[in-house]
Amino acid sequence: MQTIEMMTEATAADLFPETTVSRTELTPVSFLRRTAALYPDRVAVVHGGRRFTWAEHLDRVDRLASAMRGAGLRKHDRVAILCRNLPQMLEAHMAVPAAGGVLVAINIRLSSDEVGYILDHSGARFLLFDRALRGAMEGLDLEHVMIVEIDEDMSPDGGYERFLASGSPGPIESWLEDEEEPISINYTSGTTGRPKGVVYTHRGAYLNALGEVIEAHLRSDSIYLWTLPMFHCNGWCFTWAVTAAGGTHVCLPAVDPGKIWELIDSEGVTHLNGAPVVHLGVVNHAAAHPLDREIIVCVAGAPPSPTLLGQMRTLGFRPLHVYGLTETYGPTTVCAWQESWPQMETDALASRLARQGQAYVISDEVRVVDPDIRDVPRDGITMGEVVMRGNNVMLGYFRSREGTEEAFRGGWFHSGDIAVWHQDGYIELRDRAKDLIISGGENISTIEVEQAIVKHPAVLECAVVAVPHPRWGERPKAFVTLRPGVSASEEEIITFARERLAHFKAPDTVDFCELPKTSTGKVQKFVLREREWQGLERRIN
Amino acid sequence: MQTIEMMTEATAADLFPETTVSRTELTPVSFLRRTAALYPDRVAVVHGGRRFTWAEHLDRVDRLASAMRGAGLRKHDRVAILCRNLPQMLEAHMAVPAAGGVLVAINIRLSSDEVGYILDHSGARFLLFDRALRGAMEGLDLEHVMIVEIDEDMSPDGGYERFLASGSPGPIESWLEDEEEPISINYTSGTTGRPKGVVYTHRGAYLNALGEVIEAHLRSDSIYLWTLPMFHCNGWCFTWAVTAAGGTHVCLPAVDPGKIWELIDSEGVTHLNGAPVVHLGVVNHAAAHPLDREIIVCVAGAPPSPTLLGQMRTLGFRPLHVYGLTETYGPTTVCAWQESWPQMETDALASRLARQGQAYVISDEVRVVDPDIRDVPRDGITMGEVVMRGNNVMLGYFRSREGTEEAFRGGWFHSGDIAVWHQDGYIELRDRAKDLIISGGENISTIEVEQAIVKHPAVLECAVVAVPHPRWGERPKAFVTLRPGVSASEEEIITFARERLAHFKAPDTVDFCELPKTSTGKVQKFVLREREWQGLERRIN
Repeated sequence: MQTIEMMTEATAADLFPETTVSRTELTPVSFLRRTAALYPDRVAVVHGGRRFTWAEHLDRVDRLASAMRGAGLRKHDRVAILCRNLPQMLEAHMAVPAAGGVLVAINIRLSSDEVGYILDHSGARFLLFDRALRGAMEGLDLEHVMIVEIDEDMSPDGGYERFLASGSPGPIESWLEDEEEPISINYTSGTTGRPKGVVYTHRGAYLNALGEVIEAHLRSDSIYLWTLPMFHCNGWCFTWAVTAAGGTHVCLPAVDPGKIWELIDSEGVTHLNGAPVVHLGVVNHAAAHPLDREIIVCVAGAPPSPTLLGQMRTLGFRPLHVYGLTETYGPTTVCAWQESWPQMETDALASRLARQGQAYVISDEVRVVDPDIRDVPRDGITMGEVVMRGNNVMLGYFRSREGTEEAFRGGWFHSGDIAVWHQDGYIELRDRAKDLIISGGENISTIEVEQAIVKHPAVLECAVVAVPHPRWGERPKAFVTLRPGVSASEEEIITFARERLAHFKAPDTVDFCELPKTSTGKVQKFVLREREWQGLERRIN
Repeated sequence: MQTIEMMTEATAADLFPETTVSRTELTPVSFLRRTAALYPDRVAVVHGGRRFTWAEHLDRVDRLASAMRGAGLRKHDRVAILCRNLPQMLEAHMAVPAAGGVLVAINIRLSSDEVGYILDHSGARFLLFDRALRGAMEGLDLEHVMIVEIDEDMSPDGGYERFLASGSPGPIESWLEDEEEPISINYTSGTTGRPKGVVYTHRGAYLNALGEVIEAHLRSDSIYLWTLPMFHCNGWCFTWAVTAAGGTHVCLPAVDPGKIWELIDSEGVTHLNGAPVVHLGVVNHAAAHPLDREIIVCVAGAPPSPTLLGQMRTLGFRPLHVYGLTETYGPTTVCAWQESWPQMETDALASRLARQGQAYVISDEVRVVDPDIRDVPRDGITMGEVVMRGNNVMLGYFRSREGTEEAFRGGWFHSGDIAVWHQDGYIELRDRAKDLIISGGENISTIEVEQAIVKHPAVLECAVVAVPHPRWGERPKAFVTLRPGVSASEEEIITFARERLAHFKAPDTVDFCELPKTSTGKVQKFVLREREWQGLERRIN
């Protein structure tokens, strides 16, 4: 054993080999090639009566990638797509990265002015667009953009199909040199200011997709229903994750609860995702019925109310509450189920499930911090900002060094979300930083007030915002949508809230109305707030 | 849109941000911290009557890591461990990487000479050893190695427990700068020559562990029984994978089919792994009984016979046939189930399940190639060598530049395994390169012959090797172990084989005997071959 001392003094480079056989750059494109090789004849994509096998899906992806190269695509060229949840949207999610381009999936509910801004800001050289959305392109100068028109019916003489026909089968040579190269840019639906371009990488998309497979228990026999828009964080990376697992994508061009129930029953759906507003429509639809199997439902986009979670559970859905932002590739935390939960009463369980939880297996721990980026106490009371870092945090904002630096100050991504940190490590959102109400120096979480009010049996949905008050500075006001065919008075709602909250947190006034929402179903509190603050300067909090 | 041309000419560096918030080095150590945070009170490790929660397990890991630092461990120092499947072995699998060391888990069945060689070659500065295995250290000069004695009973005054007590709780600072740094060295149980040190990286271990979680459907409610030795490819990375999933490790210090059945029933086991010889013992044990739930069983180490697979299926095990080598972090291919398989007859299914399949989701496609590294036809007939590359191929052999270059010639890892490539892309092993029989210029796969013979109802196990022949050069000879209480003649076996194989493939002679095996249950064909070739020079094939 006399050689030991000498050997341990040697440097690692002397002792450990350096080779390249042991490294392949991570990219979601590999998922498709592997799944198509394993399950060539299984159904990959369902759209109405059309079914594509994995071999067919791969062939279309390869042709699209090759056609784009043939049309002059250069490495990292941006390829914009404006498309509902159609098979072509899934094809672009693999073909653009395979070709070496960067996918820019645009929110289909934007105005032509906003679409124009994104095309311009991203410098898109290609635009694939769904002909049903032609209105969003009116008046745009598209002289320098190559346009391919997508036709839902896939008739052979449609623009997209002719473009595919111009491509060749088989894989094209990969241009990927480094897994940290960009794969997509997702423009945030900023409630104020111009949208920002959130850059994802091949590595981040790959790892986040595997995280989704693991957290949502996706397998090769999973049937995933596309209730979530694919343009939203690349469908929370499920565009890649379902393919990684070898499951089946069931397209849904427009959210329609009746259609969702039809497909749940006819296609044997096992998984679906969406914002609470989607699930609210599903559980309250006339066709709702107890399930004969468990469907795993990822809920995110806004904290679901305990009431909604309880309803889902009663029907047999297994809600998995996840949370994230466009900047974190979609969900990055999961309210992971604990052993004792399946035996809990629905109400108690729903309160636990309303927490955002903790990081995915592929994510770094998500923290709740004070302004100096120090952890707040894990007491379930102290509020702080949610910050993240790691492999599923964006590379940064496209063409915005300042915006990126601001978001990443102190070496952490600042979510702008306010939360408490529970003793068990789970975080629970209390508010967007800008939504927090400061009343007489006390913080009031609008989410906490909303969750109390929505427990009232007559309430379908509720949003609470700060309104000006001469003495307290701000006070909470509730906007409530009642369930069809029932009624409740303002006084009844206020009393109900006061029975469940510290009195200073209960609203002073209640309006009954429809709630304004973004295209992804998020309540636009700024619209409500602006109404109330017209002509007044908002306090800074 | 006039800015587009200008923008697309800009380089990626101008357009895409460069930040570090979006990158965390991949390491399996993160799995433990995350699981312990999510499930602090769940059972992490079971050993007999002892149960450690995740919080307790993490605390022991942190103390061990800190104790090693305190005892002088430097970055990349090798820490050897010689230990049965005990909780301490799991602890070392996380603590050594957490401390910045490189784990060298040694096969517990080696002689003291072999252990000495590995300690010397790896330059180990620490040796953790199971006191029950003290015999393996007799006569070794361990002057320069720091020794910690592991005591199965974990009495507080044992060496390991006292060492833990010298460490401090809480995480130590990570020294990991690059995920491609080494995490472990696994010495191959080479049948000829000295063992080679296969170097794994943090990145490879992380990705392969996630691959195991996905392919074996590990979840937080999984109960994994340690029938596979943890020293074998770090337990095929399940030491890290089960922890990533948040499942429970059930330790098993020695393979004992009766004990396995006891734990299957008492602990609610959902997963176990091992070589065919282990499963052979389980399905043929007196306590074998139909299962009330499906247990996922990864089978590897040697191709399982259709007969064994059929028996497992009948009891309710779901065999998942996987294949790999020490150089591929353990399994890298899976015989992925197809939709139609659950409905197949056991015999037909078993034949399909005997294939090695294709790459894990995290692996590159596994190829079968000719000597110029060109794909062989996918005809199920043409034989070639199995080659791999990608993130779960070893970094190389420790302190063997030549060995690494030889194994990686042409940019691919050469497995030394001979296989055919089926039309569906699945590979099926035909032989180790050195086991292949060349008889009158025709290749004969010993595995094909063995699988034909083992279908005979009286045959428990069978090994076929080449024996010298004056006319044909080589001919197959079968070594057969019969089931207890039944008999069969040599002539009967030969006739049975000739009915199922091309006549030139059937053996000319049959010996009835016990088969010599390695400690991991692999049949040592070289022992049989050497007996037959004594005094003769072996033909090269």
